Amino acid sequence: MFCLTTATDPAWATLAAERLDLVLIDHAHCEMKAASSALALAGRAVFAPSIVRPLVALAQEELAHFDRVLAELERRGLELGAPPVDDYAAALLRHVTGPKAGRERMVDRLLAGALIEARSCERFKLLTEALGGRGLDDEAAFYRELLASEARHYTVLRQLAIDVGGDEPRTLARLAELAQIEGAINADLGRVAAIHG
Amino acid sequence: MFCLTTATDPAWATLAAERLDLVLIDHAHCEMKAASSALALAGRAVFAPSIVRPLVALAQEELAHFDRVLAELERRGLELGAPPVDDYAAALLRHVTGPKAGRERMVDRLLAGALIEARSCERFKLLTEALGGRGLDDEAAFYRELLASEARHYTVLRQLAIDVGGDEPRTLARLAELAQIEGAINADLGRVAAIHG
Repeated sequence: MFCLTTATDPAWATLAAERLDLVLIDHAHCEMKAASSALALAGRAVFAPSIVRPLVALAQEELAHFDRVLAELERRGLELGAPPVDDYAAALLRHVTGPKAGRERMVDRLLAGALIEARSCERFKLLTEALGGRGLDDEAAFYRELLASEARHYTVLRQLAIDVGGDEPRTLARLAELAQIEGAINADLGRVAAIHG
Repeated sequence: MFCLTTATDPAWATLAAERLDLVLIDHAHCEMKAASSALALAGRAVFAPSIVRPLVALAQEELAHFDRVLAELERRGLELGAPPVDDYAAALLRHVTGPKAGRERMVDRLLAGALIEARSCERFKLLTEALGGRGLDDEAAFYRELLASEARHYTVLRQLAIDVGGDEPRTLARLAELAQIEGAINADLGRVAAIHG
């Protein structure tokens, strides 16, 4: 899917559909972190003013999703709890390079963000199918709708990276490099009921 | 105004109205930081689940304001630039106490946030008057509307602090203490064209 280089172990979807409570809690934190991260990038896009408002729009959408997942937690009597450690995202972000506050680092952060959205999209698709297979149609519809947003966010972040980088072939080559790294990280995952677990 | 213990030097409003370009750029960053801060609190409100969604709603409103100020910068051909250091907020936040991730610190952070909103509200009122006095009616209307939101945010954050603290008189006594500190910090300011300058 998109530029992803490895597929998630199908066993993950069974595990996630069985423990949808844990997935929803983790998912809420993911939306919150995605909004924070878009905002942080917007506030530091000194050399690329054109990307500020698209990042704010992205943060607004992530926040709206955060609230939707919170409403679902409330409906189920679940609590958000402390933010879990996201080893997957941390491992990927360790490969973001370039001097602090520089253009190269901004491109890498946008590309890493795009890959995280692509992976979430792939996982939501697997989860939608697993939920549908269990007759959990409302839950499947919820993730089907969010899946479409994650796909859009992937496209937006990839395009912003190209805009900031100012050299499309070079930015796409870097995306391919980071996609190899992301794929290797993902190949070791898929055994925990969490969006990136 | 509200629980503020010192008034801003009226000379600040003249300075700010004269350099509205600088004020708008600073203001955009303030809205972004307010949204980030509300989100960070929402993600860490482990022991007070009831405040999570109100904080998300607050972050959404701050983001909408951030975007409005960005639109105004765009209209004027101004760029957001790098986030300025906010010595005022940093000085106030140094007085936030209590163990990390604890209830006492959360109460202090909410109260400090309430005071920052109250101060912004007072400053926006002064600015609205100064802009109106110069016949800048559109600009005055812009700040008059935002002023009403800052007032509401003050009330929301103060109430969330009371909810988290679980002891209204104690929380209000702490608000009075922090208001003394904030007032002393503000008494040394008012000489820079920035929202908290």
